[in-house]
Amino acid sequence: MQGPVQSSSTSVIKSSLIEPDGGVLVNLIVPESEREAKTAEAESLPKVRLTKIDVEWLHVISEGWASPLKGFMREDEYLQSLHFNSLRLKDGSFVNMSLPIVLAIDDETKERIGSSSDVGLVRPDGDLIAILRSIQIYKHNKEERIARTWGTTAPGLPYAEEVITRAGNWLIGGDLEVLKPIKYNDGLDHYRLSPKQLRQEFDRRGADAVFAFQLRNPVHNGHALLMNDTRRRLLEMGFKNPILLLHPLGGFTKADDVPLDVRMEQHSKVLEDGVLDPETTIVAIFPSPMHYAGPTEVQWHAKARINAGANFYIVGRDPAGMGHPTEKRDLYDPDHGKKVLSMAPGLEKLNILPFRVAAYDTMAKKMAFFDPSRAKEFLFISGTKMRTYARTGENPPDGFMCPGGWKVLVKYYESLQAEDLIQQPAAVSS
Amino acid sequence: MQGPVQSSSTSVIKSSLIEPDGGVLVNLIVPESEREAKTAEAESLPKVRLTKIDVEWLHVISEGWASPLKGFMREDEYLQSLHFNSLRLKDGSFVNMSLPIVLAIDDETKERIGSSSDVGLVRPDGDLIAILRSIQIYKHNKEERIARTWGTTAPGLPYAEEVITRAGNWLIGGDLEVLKPIKYNDGLDHYRLSPKQLRQEFDRRGADAVFAFQLRNPVHNGHALLMNDTRRRLLEMGFKNPILLLHPLGGFTKADDVPLDVRMEQHSKVLEDGVLDPETTIVAIFPSPMHYAGPTEVQWHAKARINAGANFYIVGRDPAGMGHPTEKRDLYDPDHGKKVLSMAPGLEKLNILPFRVAAYDTMAKKMAFFDPSRAKEFLFISGTKMRTYARTGENPPDGFMCPGGWKVLVKYYESLQAEDLIQQPAAVSS
Repeated sequence: MQGPVQSSSTSVIKSSLIEPDGGVLVNLIVPESEREAKTAEAESLPKVRLTKIDVEWLHVISEGWASPLKGFMREDEYLQSLHFNSLRLKDGSFVNMSLPIVLAIDDETKERIGSSSDVGLVRPDGDLIAILRSIQIYKHNKEERIARTWGTTAPGLPYAEEVITRAGNWLIGGDLEVLKPIKYNDGLDHYRLSPKQLRQEFDRRGADAVFAFQLRNPVHNGHALLMNDTRRRLLEMGFKNPILLLHPLGGFTKADDVPLDVRMEQHSKVLEDGVLDPETTIVAIFPSPMHYAGPTEVQWHAKARINAGANFYIVGRDPAGMGHPTEKRDLYDPDHGKKVLSMAPGLEKLNILPFRVAAYDTMAKKMAFFDPSRAKEFLFISGTKMRTYARTGENPPDGFMCPGGWKVLVKYYESLQAEDLIQQPAAVSS
Repeated sequence: MQGPVQSSSTSVIKSSLIEPDGGVLVNLIVPESEREAKTAEAESLPKVRLTKIDVEWLHVISEGWASPLKGFMREDEYLQSLHFNSLRLKDGSFVNMSLPIVLAIDDETKERIGSSSDVGLVRPDGDLIAILRSIQIYKHNKEERIARTWGTTAPGLPYAEEVITRAGNWLIGGDLEVLKPIKYNDGLDHYRLSPKQLRQEFDRRGADAVFAFQLRNPVHNGHALLMNDTRRRLLEMGFKNPILLLHPLGGFTKADDVPLDVRMEQHSKVLEDGVLDPETTIVAIFPSPMHYAGPTEVQWHAKARINAGANFYIVGRDPAGMGHPTEKRDLYDPDHGKKVLSMAPGLEKLNILPFRVAAYDTMAKKMAFFDPSRAKEFLFISGTKMRTYARTGENPPDGFMCPGGWKVLVKYYESLQAEDLIQQPAAVSS
């Protein structure tokens, strides 16, 4: 095993494994020495009040997950993202940028900003958190944004309904200066490692390969199988110390997804129970909100992990997909995600690892790679089915998930049912 | 003035001005010596019957307008076009490819093809015209195709309604072999110069710059002003013999656009009347159908002209745009076309010439570049307004269009009204 590599003490972090997009990891947090002066300046500027999800994006941009993006997109960046899923750099090369990372404002706010070239950004609770410099305000064509990002405009897309439809008719782009690191004070901030911190940790552990696994669901033994199998394959390829980045998404998710705190508890049980090896696994939170935009979004998920120092990315069936909101079918072709990912401009330097489908093997009584020649012996346990098990107190088949992790889910769904009872007093009292 | 350059006699046509995409101009017409054998082979294959618009696309592909595309798109090309508006070549470089050029088939045809790897393509009238080799059949998700191409799924998009909605649920891609050059026998075939013929003509005239003007409307003096002004600017830049390619689109257009034969007659009057100089102008037909897909389509319009040998491309306000089909606004931001064009992957080698808006100057009594400082003295004559003039027999302001060209339009609209009268006998007799 290779000894730990001392991380560089310069401010430019470059992992030996993969360069951040644009060559330099963006860091938009104002140095402490300037914080007071910048805060005073921000106080004097017209203010834009952010939503909770705007703050999540600001967090994402501030730490360089979206490098080389230095702020909310101006129109040139927005159009390139929307039409080409990539940005052209000055040297003519492309970086991937598949989701528009934009900030919407309403007519009244636009009016209030007037001709000011800079604005102060304010948290939902009123705290000043950033300055947006050299701003550009341009039209927010919501229909076009939704159509080109999701490939549908059907009502019921979670992010579109929660964020876009109710947002203002203008977008405001500019360069960000963030007054201090974004914290959530939810007991999970220690999981929120920035790309810089992740790169340092990979170096500290002497990783010679980092493979990232993006998820927004509890880890079952099928996931574990493929993560462990990936490690095995990397060792076979000759890598000596491949490190797994188990990287649950921490921002906005849809109402019926399992909440972040429950997922984090479940993930730690999976490591405690030895299903994944803590020595070669790093669990951290990816602060991005979720779009459920399938092939478009999976590029963002992969690109952000390049910036975090991962040089291998695992992609499965229907990444970032969901059911069509109004038709009885998957919104995306389940194979398009990995196909699009393998062809996406700017992702050439990332090694894409498509994985085989895992399912419950009723003969071996464990999760195994699906074998079409004995299809009938496999049981597919969907998220919906898993939730039904947990909600009804029924146990899933032995070997579906480690017992410690399963308990966390059962406890969560019990608490939901208790809440439901409390919220339906009429039904209870009648 | 530079002397005419002798065109190369090899089969690879490379204009000195600009390389075709992929380096070689695609030509999929079967050599005459092989025609008989290939036709016999095609007879033996399962058949796919094309629509009129499918044949237009086949024409486009066969002559290399879409180089390096060698047939209807397979899924890899389709997905890259849909998501990235570009195709990555084996050497890692990108060519632009913003519109999916695909062939749809229905369930019954798919069934009939079975496991055959090649199919014969048949005109609407039953004539065999091509073989499609090494086919791939994949799902035709119409909603996603429309959303990502147009940025809306609103009902009433002309191409979507005419072509996509009624098409089959499968797309079939493969390599084309076209049995003989596509002809229309409509008296306009002599205007249908292939990219190869255009490149030869530019060489014959000794062009040292070629600027293309895409249009689907009659040429008024505002258009002429900017074409002549572009020539003036190119001469100022030091070019000695800039040639204008006046390049009306000849494929599918929406019902209320002026038909191709009328436009071609109108264009020749414009040259006859001396508004454009026949010495430095080539009028030819661009055989592509029209999508009315704004910023996405304008890339196709420009890319195809690279293949035809043009190294300058004129782009105006709202190229390939139209009114939103269900809302009272332009479907696209009128500035997005030229912005997207200037940033599009694969179009870097093309010189984009955005033009200023021309309008009728009521003081000078001619079409002139709009001067915002005396906005009230300018009259904007929209297509709708122009049609109203022509229909009501009212003359447009002096200097709007050359008299010969105007007469062509008046005659056309008179014939339409005569048809209307014939088609409304009830109204007439009541």
